[in-house]
Amino acid sequence: MDVGFLRKTFGDRFVEDSSIAALYVHDASFVEGESNVFGVVFPETEGEVVELVRWAIKHKVPLFPQGSATSLSGNAAATARGLVVSFERMTKVEIDPGDGVAVVGPGVRIEELNVELARYGFFFPVDPGSMRSATIGGAIANGAGGMRGAKYGTVKDWVLGLRVVTGRGDVLKVGCKTFKCRNGYDLVRLFVGSEGTLGLITEAVLKLAPVPESAVAVLAYYDDVEPLVEDVVRVRASRIWPLFAEFLDAPTAAVVGLEERDTLFLGVDVNTGAEERVLKRLQSIVRGRVASVAVGWSEAMKLLEPRRRLYSAQVHLAQRGGGVLVIEDVAVPISKLPDAVRGLKKLAEKYGVPLLLGGHVGDGNLHPATWFRKEEGPGKAEKFIREMAELVVGLGGTVSAEHGVGTLKKDLIALELGDAVLTYMRELKKVFDPYNILNPGKIA
Amino acid sequence: MDVGFLRKTFGDRFVEDSSIAALYVHDASFVEGESNVFGVVFPETEGEVVELVRWAIKHKVPLFPQGSATSLSGNAAATARGLVVSFERMTKVEIDPGDGVAVVGPGVRIEELNVELARYGFFFPVDPGSMRSATIGGAIANGAGGMRGAKYGTVKDWVLGLRVVTGRGDVLKVGCKTFKCRNGYDLVRLFVGSEGTLGLITEAVLKLAPVPESAVAVLAYYDDVEPLVEDVVRVRASRIWPLFAEFLDAPTAAVVGLEERDTLFLGVDVNTGAEERVLKRLQSIVRGRVASVAVGWSEAMKLLEPRRRLYSAQVHLAQRGGGVLVIEDVAVPISKLPDAVRGLKKLAEKYGVPLLLGGHVGDGNLHPATWFRKEEGPGKAEKFIREMAELVVGLGGTVSAEHGVGTLKKDLIALELGDAVLTYMRELKKVFDPYNILNPGKIA
Ligand SMILES: Cc1cc2nc3c(=O)[nH]c(=O)nc-3n(C[C@H](O)[C@H](O)[C@H](O)COP(=O)(O)OP(=O)(O)OC[C@H]3O[C@@H](n4cnc5c(N)ncnc54)[C@H](O)[C@@H]3O)c2cc1C
Ligand SMILES: Cc1cc2nc3c(=O)[nH]c(=O)nc-3n(C[C@H](O)[C@H](O)[C@H](O)COP(=O)(O)OP(=O)(O)OC[C@H]3O[C@@H](n4cnc5c(N)ncnc54)[C@H](O)[C@@H]3O)c2cc1C
Repeated sequence: MDVGFLRKTFGDRFVEDSSIAALYVHDASFVEGESNVFGVVFPETEGEVVELVRWAIKHKVPLFPQGSATSLSGNAAATARGLVVSFERMTKVEIDPGDGVAVVGPGVRIEELNVELARYGFFFPVDPGSMRSATIGGAIANGAGGMRGAKYGTVKDWVLGLRVVTGRGDVLKVGCKTFKCRNGYDLVRLFVGSEGTLGLITEAVLKLAPVPESAVAVLAYYDDVEPLVEDVVRVRASRIWPLFAEFLDAPTAAVVGLEERDTLFLGVDVNTGAEERVLKRLQSIVRGRVASVAVGWSEAMKLLEPRRRLYSAQVHLAQRGGGVLVIEDVAVPISKLPDAVRGLKKLAEKYGVPLLLGGHVGDGNLHPATWFRKEEGPGKAEKFIREMAELVVGLGGTVSAEHGVGTLKKDLIALELGDAVLTYMRELKKVFDPYNILNPGKIA
Repeated sequence: MDVGFLRKTFGDRFVEDSSIAALYVHDASFVEGESNVFGVVFPETEGEVVELVRWAIKHKVPLFPQGSATSLSGNAAATARGLVVSFERMTKVEIDPGDGVAVVGPGVRIEELNVELARYGFFFPVDPGSMRSATIGGAIANGAGGMRGAKYGTVKDWVLGLRVVTGRGDVLKVGCKTFKCRNGYDLVRLFVGSEGTLGLITEAVLKLAPVPESAVAVLAYYDDVEPLVEDVVRVRASRIWPLFAEFLDAPTAAVVGLEERDTLFLGVDVNTGAEERVLKRLQSIVRGRVASVAVGWSEAMKLLEPRRRLYSAQVHLAQRGGGVLVIEDVAVPISKLPDAVRGLKKLAEKYGVPLLLGGHVGDGNLHPATWFRKEEGPGKAEKFIREMAELVVGLGGTVSAEHGVGTLKKDLIALELGDAVLTYMRELKKVFDPYNILNPGKIA
């Protein structure tokens, strides 16, 4: 193996030390990475990325791109002896408030970008629970969503253009710098959510949203999930488009320090001056179940804080239980949420595992969490995930709402899509990465 | 040619009469269709579409899919001896207000869908000028936008799932019925905007938006486009996200019955009760230029009426001038709009043609219209379009913001994207349509 090229090109940005490299071979899921990698490189320019891909083609070395490796389906894990490519050094940020766009490097963290944008009254609306560390490149390649998704959608709605290096070493400039374009096939959104398997993102043009004037939010307690979901539907039917509609089931609410009851966090962005009326409206829909309210954009975001604490609470519990944490990600049509919740609870009983249920209920998206004892190995968890997938597909849902396919869902998307679609996906992969050097073993 | 199959399968839904078929070979652009087609078929089921594609593969017959043929770049024109496939009989509409989605056939007209949706307090936000006749299938295959795009984006943002028959005769079910999914590569958005060249859409799952509680709008006159654009930028910077920001230049405003001055239509959706304050805010930004105001959702939509009259006025003028109408579609970053307007005016002078300028200024999108005398042939118009493309690409813009590539822009997208991207697009086309029977001659 000619690592001379890596040493020459990247200098001390090529880390060969196997104990350091071992930190980079897995992501936030329980998928164990291949620890015997050649090392980690930290490119700083697109030119370096092109050279790297050409070298990888020549030597048939798999490349495993990474932002902050916060993925939850093994998307960012090394699956073979290869090289981890970390984009954390590509952190350019150019904001153009007049045009309402930002041009950024893939390594910029979402939260850091938002700190910059706040000065101009703009924000990047996609807010995965991991946004303090998650990078723009990782969020794009993962097609990430978040709590504000009920109103603002996912990353695919906020990327205008990309620069990408394909697995053939070509640099593609796709999309545009304007708010819309129709210049042929939508390659931008083909790269969004492709998990690094079609190309390496070296730059992104993002669309920015003006920070809403104001917002209101309520936190409400329920004794059952059915009326909770009905209330969310009634909010939308009353011509109010929620900004967020987050759910925690009773045990989960207790874990983050709330009452042990099914909990709804419901937020709406409003005009200044309209707070009181919309709040009354929400209160009348949620009928006497309101435990606390928030007025103003920052206050509404603060009301979500317990919800944002969920992950660390889960990690803590799983560790205390000596277990391997599994955070799942499924969605069903909103009306099917009560069925999904009941089904998931039954499933957890069957497997004899704990179950914490939270999710973006405005999107029909649940993130069931559980943990398995380490000595049980990953097999039991994988079986559990498959049964979960069968359950939600049976309800007209999806096996992955936002976390993506990675290695964990690779065999499960067929349940939902059928085999023909997978054949086409494999052929697309071949167009962009005929040598299978880009994040092999994921998606297709 | 075995038309026996067509007669047997489609009965009187196969129209062989060449004078009727001639009505279907072109769209709303000046591109002349191939009149010597075999006829028009009107499928009613997906099964018929599959049989049709298999027959077309066997006999190497090009298929030209059509909704209402309102395309403006030759997207829906027949370019060879083949068969027009009209989807106007596939008009299923299933609305699920609880889940906030609708499942529709490709032949449903946008306006008809909205009439149905109004009963539930929902709407489908994409509103091309042609929405009275444009179909959902045509809008999806065209990736259409419209006046409310400043807030609501384009069709790509409102399609959750599709059923599609590829050029290999396979039925693909892509996307999902939930508000988001990450089940592999985003094939939904690969079909959106593919102009019938990758697959025939037989069903779509659409995401619905709640009708906003209220809205306000102003119509304002300017003596120059620069302060007009500045005002649009200032609105966004003051944390107001416009619903629409439409522009007509002075001659165009006169044509639709307004004062002969540069005109801005600015609308914002607001909460009930916030109308007065937001209206004052708009008025203070637009400083004394306001000619009329509207309060309430329907009133705001009504204020746009003169803008919606533009097309028929243009058709009328072009006909009176004995000319062939050219309606173009370009976009530039918002700050570059004044440069674009100046450049376009110069170009029209150079060619000695009239110029009517209107557009979705909130998206940086201009629709320059002009007409050429019939005896000049299409060559002069095509040259004009190329120079226009060079101008906007030089300003960092796009040669097509929403009308698509069709035959007219096929050679122009390279200006913007470079040749490498086109190579990949051609390879994608081969994956989905290896026999080149789906709308050949368009995009790739
Ligand atoms: C606590 C927690 C909460 C989370 N909450 C959410 C949530 O609410 N919504 C959600 O969608 N996700 C969530 N996630 C998952 C994940 O954090 C997000 O998808 C995030 O955007 C990933 O960013 P990253 O920088 O860590 O990417 P990584 O995990 O490093 O990479 C993501 C994928 O992109 C690829 N990649 C990275 N950079 C590039 C590049 N430059 N070019 C090409 N490919 C690249 C990787 O190979 C991988 O396949 C959560 C994760 C955690 C741990
Ligand atoms: C007055 C006027 C105003 C307009 N304003 C706008 C505007 O504001 N914004 C905008 O974006 N466009 C606009 N357009 C362009 C056009 O009307 C829209 O794109 C519209 O959505 C097309 O719908 P259609 O049913 O007429 O499609 P068609 O023109 O029939 O077809 C559009 C494309 O889709 C293909 N196609 C049709 N049905 C299917 C199917 N079932 N499966 C696969 N492929 C299919 C066709 O081959 C063609 O390539 C305007 C046009 C006119 C005449």
